[in-house]
Amino acid sequence: MIYLDNAATTKPLFNAIKECEKYLNDEYFNPSAKYKQGIETKKVIERARKVFLDDLSSNFDVVFTSCGTEADNTAIFSFAKRGNVITSLGEHSAVYECFNQLKIKGVEVRFAKLLPDGRVDKEHLLSLVDEKTTFVSIVHVNNETGGINDICDLANAIKRKNPSVIFHSDGVQAFGKLPYNLTDDIDLYSVSAHKIGGLKGTGALIKKKKLTLTPYLFGGGQENGLRSGTENVFGITVFASAYKQKRDKITENFNYALSLKELFLKNLNTEIIKVISTEFCSPYVLSLSAEGLRGEVILHMMEEFGVIIGTGSACSSKNPHSRILKECGFGAKTLDGALRISFSNFTTKDDVLFAVEKLNECVKKLKGIMRK
Amino acid sequence: MIYLDNAATTKPLFNAIKECEKYLNDEYFNPSAKYKQGIETKKVIERARKVFLDDLSSNFDVVFTSCGTEADNTAIFSFAKRGNVITSLGEHSAVYECFNQLKIKGVEVRFAKLLPDGRVDKEHLLSLVDEKTTFVSIVHVNNETGGINDICDLANAIKRKNPSVIFHSDGVQAFGKLPYNLTDDIDLYSVSAHKIGGLKGTGALIKKKKLTLTPYLFGGGQENGLRSGTENVFGITVFASAYKQKRDKITENFNYALSLKELFLKNLNTEIIKVISTEFCSPYVLSLSAEGLRGEVILHMMEEFGVIIGTGSACSSKNPHSRILKECGFGAKTLDGALRISFSNFTTKDDVLFAVEKLNECVKKLKGIMRK
Repeated sequence: MIYLDNAATTKPLFNAIKECEKYLNDEYFNPSAKYKQGIETKKVIERARKVFLDDLSSNFDVVFTSCGTEADNTAIFSFAKRGNVITSLGEHSAVYECFNQLKIKGVEVRFAKLLPDGRVDKEHLLSLVDEKTTFVSIVHVNNETGGINDICDLANAIKRKNPSVIFHSDGVQAFGKLPYNLTDDIDLYSVSAHKIGGLKGTGALIKKKKLTLTPYLFGGGQENGLRSGTENVFGITVFASAYKQKRDKITENFNYALSLKELFLKNLNTEIIKVISTEFCSPYVLSLSAEGLRGEVILHMMEEFGVIIGTGSACSSKNPHSRILKECGFGAKTLDGALRISFSNFTTKDDVLFAVEKLNECVKKLKGIMRK
Repeated sequence: MIYLDNAATTKPLFNAIKECEKYLNDEYFNPSAKYKQGIETKKVIERARKVFLDDLSSNFDVVFTSCGTEADNTAIFSFAKRGNVITSLGEHSAVYECFNQLKIKGVEVRFAKLLPDGRVDKEHLLSLVDEKTTFVSIVHVNNETGGINDICDLANAIKRKNPSVIFHSDGVQAFGKLPYNLTDDIDLYSVSAHKIGGLKGTGALIKKKKLTLTPYLFGGGQENGLRSGTENVFGITVFASAYKQKRDKITENFNYALSLKELFLKNLNTEIIKVISTEFCSPYVLSLSAEGLRGEVILHMMEEFGVIIGTGSACSSKNPHSRILKECGFGAKTLDGALRISFSNFTTKDDVLFAVEKLNECVKKLKGIMRK
């Protein structure tokens, strides 16, 4: 099997699980307990937190959550309450659906337009910011096209227009993949474990210390009162271990992913397959379209060759097209044939060569059938 | 080590983890994906859900959550909105703190009193119910005393007074431990994995199908739109596997726990240690007090003998006493010396005999020191 849907989820890192499985099997204590095993387990969580804090200025704190979606929801519903609030049309549904909820609640919601590669249109975004803007959320890496938003630059430009804005970014597809540093203009940043070799069921919200979150869950007061519920010790430790591994090789991994993307593109038959992603996109994500064909049909044909790819959209009978690619400005033919290829550091060059060859074949075959 | 704090968390079941570890390591796919591995992973979740549904009437459904606290919060904030809402003074903080939040939001909150063993005072509870009551939440098993509330009887009596009431119960300390069946008077029931040999980071809300929850997280629409966020496949499958094992031996396990509790009590020096739990309490939890002493001191002395027990309260300098035991009517001396012993099916009779002998010794020694 050649797995090229790593943006959906990726294989947990074997050595992260090995390193932490004692917290699964033997050191299963409740971190709130008063005996030494409980106190030690609490320290284990704090050591895991420190792995994330090490990369951040001392103005930041980390709150562990049950997923990236919870981090997004917590950030947005804590601060997007008054005046007008802004997001982009390229957000993951974990952000987009929260803003739709805010609209239902009567908050004024503004959506910034996208460029064709899924990045936010900076000029349009800034034109939406005014003195009544309280909150802006812009995804770091578009999960369908890989479009990279320079969130530090955007947050800075927004704060120059209105310094009281709170700036959030969904960093799920960037964290542990793109080399960057969060500047102090970023107030809130959502991350997820299972996109970088951690486990489903673990995420975190990186936040400025001075910001007071509205707790998303009330109860035992874990995570400094900000996220009640017994801590998922195993998930948290695996997340820290996976992140550490990713961080320590982040540039090397980034360059390797770039070489995979370039190899793929070099061998892609661009006469029959359109490339949506640009050089301004994450090397880990490649958005394509076999225009006029159905992406899902190609996905299943590729499956027959043992190659797993994504369509880049949660297709349903109600909504057959990707909301995000539509907002990039593409018409029905491009949307129909949308495909998403996403790499990991375990993807080999041979994997890429095989996958792209088969993709060319599949599309050629289908186009041939259609011409008959 | 003799671990007698199983009500706080309990060792994950080895064979549940073994059975499911393929979902940790190899079958890591996103259940929303359209290729066959994704579809199969979705089926894995549905098979896990069926394990829980098998024990319920066809009026019920199961929504997987990240913990018992999330299940409680989801139930309460979905339905406790109007008129007056009732809970007991013996609730876990995951329920109690939600009701405190409702109070802050201006909802009329009523608290039912407790009997000395932590069960709710049925007469007082019923006297609080009137035509404006919309929601009642009563814990199934009190997590500090083990006091068992006959929730089916309580829900029935409440609904005879006001049929429109929605009844919720926090079943975290009952689920997989007490033999019972949820009747149709129960509308919502919260459960947690890590109390029965599953993992921290997994819970579920059992709900009547006809009830429309307010989603707690907005996003990708997982769990039928009720709980967005990529499903914690490993956690969910381990939960189902652990529950199945517990359920299949529930009466046998219950009776074994009862024999442990009885053995403990038979050997306990009740001249110096007060027993708070009664015959109406879960056999898995035993609340005691070394009156006049500090529970935490005894906890640490017991640690020296390798025996792990709880104090039954989240002691802090701000709040040195258990809120629940206080509501049971006990004074400072009893509250100071509060201890909680909680058994699992892995506790042996020798464990119990050793622990109770050492507990008698510790208390005797401390009392002796105090007399000097």
